[in-house]
Amino acid sequence: MIRAMEHFDSLPTPALLLDRAILDSNCRLMGARMAELGVRLRPHMKTAKSAEVARLATAGHFGGITVSTLKEAHYFAERGFTDILYAVGFVPSKIGDAAAIQEMGDELILLTDNKAAAAETAIRAARLGRRFPMMIEIDTGDKRCGLDPETEADEIVDLGRVIDQSAALELRGVLTHAGQSYHSASVDAIKVVAEAERAGIVRAAELLRAAGLPCPVVSAGSTPTARYAESLDGITEMRPGVYMFGDVDQALIGSCTWDHIALTVLASVIGHNRRTGRIIVDAGGLAMSKDIGPAEFDGATGYGTVMGAGGMPRPDRMYIAAVSQEHGQLALPGGAAPPWEEFPVGSRVRIFPNHACMTAAAHDRYYVLDRDGAVVAEWDRVNGW
Amino acid sequence: MIRAMEHFDSLPTPALLLDRAILDSNCRLMGARMAELGVRLRPHMKTAKSAEVARLATAGHFGGITVSTLKEAHYFAERGFTDILYAVGFVPSKIGDAAAIQEMGDELILLTDNKAAAAETAIRAARLGRRFPMMIEIDTGDKRCGLDPETEADEIVDLGRVIDQSAALELRGVLTHAGQSYHSASVDAIKVVAEAERAGIVRAAELLRAAGLPCPVVSAGSTPTARYAESLDGITEMRPGVYMFGDVDQALIGSCTWDHIALTVLASVIGHNRRTGRIIVDAGGLAMSKDIGPAEFDGATGYGTVMGAGGMPRPDRMYIAAVSQEHGQLALPGGAAPPWEEFPVGSRVRIFPNHACMTAAAHDRYYVLDRDGAVVAEWDRVNGW
Repeated sequence: MIRAMEHFDSLPTPALLLDRAILDSNCRLMGARMAELGVRLRPHMKTAKSAEVARLATAGHFGGITVSTLKEAHYFAERGFTDILYAVGFVPSKIGDAAAIQEMGDELILLTDNKAAAAETAIRAARLGRRFPMMIEIDTGDKRCGLDPETEADEIVDLGRVIDQSAALELRGVLTHAGQSYHSASVDAIKVVAEAERAGIVRAAELLRAAGLPCPVVSAGSTPTARYAESLDGITEMRPGVYMFGDVDQALIGSCTWDHIALTVLASVIGHNRRTGRIIVDAGGLAMSKDIGPAEFDGATGYGTVMGAGGMPRPDRMYIAAVSQEHGQLALPGGAAPPWEEFPVGSRVRIFPNHACMTAAAHDRYYVLDRDGAVVAEWDRVNGW
Repeated sequence: MIRAMEHFDSLPTPALLLDRAILDSNCRLMGARMAELGVRLRPHMKTAKSAEVARLATAGHFGGITVSTLKEAHYFAERGFTDILYAVGFVPSKIGDAAAIQEMGDELILLTDNKAAAAETAIRAARLGRRFPMMIEIDTGDKRCGLDPETEADEIVDLGRVIDQSAALELRGVLTHAGQSYHSASVDAIKVVAEAERAGIVRAAELLRAAGLPCPVVSAGSTPTARYAESLDGITEMRPGVYMFGDVDQALIGSCTWDHIALTVLASVIGHNRRTGRIIVDAGGLAMSKDIGPAEFDGATGYGTVMGAGGMPRPDRMYIAAVSQEHGQLALPGGAAPPWEEFPVGSRVRIFPNHACMTAAAHDRYYVLDRDGAVVAEWDRVNGW
């Protein structure tokens, strides 16, 4: 086990490093932007899955958070968070777990886009003597879940009525996630997505209100749209998540700068393959994940980008070209020979993750660093289900 | 928490299911084959990471196992396994952890392909008053790690001398992993790889012996080559791992049959997207992993294949076409509308993983099923580092 204030260079590898100053800055900037735009910040904790990070992300805000699993909800409820939105379509068989979280004194808000699921949830909640706030999921272009406010206006109102008329449910509002923003190649493209997200979710809210149904909460948000939306008129809360950490994907779409990526993986060089021109490290497909999202924007991103001086990529753009379970293969774009002498066996590298949510999920803790690289804390994570 | 003998259909989702009868059969078949071929079976536990599975895999054999992390080594040492090979290139900074495992009474065998790393390991081991067996990693076509017995014969002998001449190390032999077998499109292609693996590792052993160096152990193996090698002459031990579970990748290369895949992910249907023709389940990129290995052989494998009757894929070949963190999108190849009525919200599906090692790593336990689908045990896993 590590001792406090040890330098990160002596940690066992692979290890998940979290730069405290960058994390603070990322949280402050997003918090200030949401305050300025007059919307509530309900940060999505599916990336960080950490109470310590959630405390920073909610500091100065109303304290509500978003989660992606009921295990997360339980973890955060145990640690004093009292306003939790479970932002994945609710399946009625999970009502027992939801009730247990509510019994801890928490507001647990559910989500649905399906009338049968809402009706069955109401029946099961009533059986347990419980009542839950429920939101309607709206699709504003992500094409994953949710009802379309243009082509499914009737379905939205019908679902609103089912929820509103159930004594065991309370219609809390509408929710959308413009996940397509992650595939935007530029800030201008993100702005277009942000406006589609805003207009679509406001339209859905208007549909409910026009039918005489309540819609107090209008919830939207992804990190790119929260950062670049030119207007959030009509939206009451935003739910960005990955902005706390940043990653290669966010850097490539302009949603963060490289030197504002707070999360890196520390790896040891374990070998040199002179025949293939690759440096072997002990961070592979598990420590980095096999997410290759950034390949959409840059063919030489592989499974992670090696950090150079000043928190930027190296000038030679060294990256992880291939992974197996516990091996990563560092290469240069184009296949030039790497500077072997800079990376003797046993030396350390820090690697920017392609997708922070996926990479962090393989690790059970963050090693939190101060500006000098000293490990000032270990923060836990809630993984799995 | 579940009660023993509950049917798996009432488990919380997503959940990792392990079919006990198939697991037993897979372990018995590989064990019998290795015994028949006269080589020792040192199963690789990087897939299962479970003491219960390791006991089945080593039953009737000499008891040695292979691991991919020192955390695994520690876990298995605590649970009575006394002959452990850490089959990832050793980095000298890990000597403290290695010594701690050895102090538990275990034989811990190290691996290297690098003279500087071996020399430094020797110095650090001596400082701790420790002596470790060490093997030389050989590349027989995988092109990841290891020295090439054809073009780097001198380097192999040099490295053998460094190890042999160190009082803190004992030259135990040579080791290879024909990882390229996973990319073989047919059984015939696997047989060619298996012979390259055998010939290459035997050649490396001969190089050491011709130089007057000891080489008692000649270690090879991957699941495909262990299953289909026509000769293992000169090899003393094999280290397959994924054969215990099987997966879509192994099924597509003919290394297992679909109905011998022991591992599945149980998911709940959480929504229907009529506009995209997709059924949404609560097993996404975390529960399944983002490994898309089988795409090399079949374009409609996505992130997992839905199980149908008789432990086979469904006749319509429904698969996970897209994932986000907690969402999977089931689709039919070609985009035909799925049979919605078969999959109401709340219904359950079982999904074959693309790559068992990656999928299992996101879960903290196995729900072990008997032939009737009753949950007869929960087995733990050792994840992370």
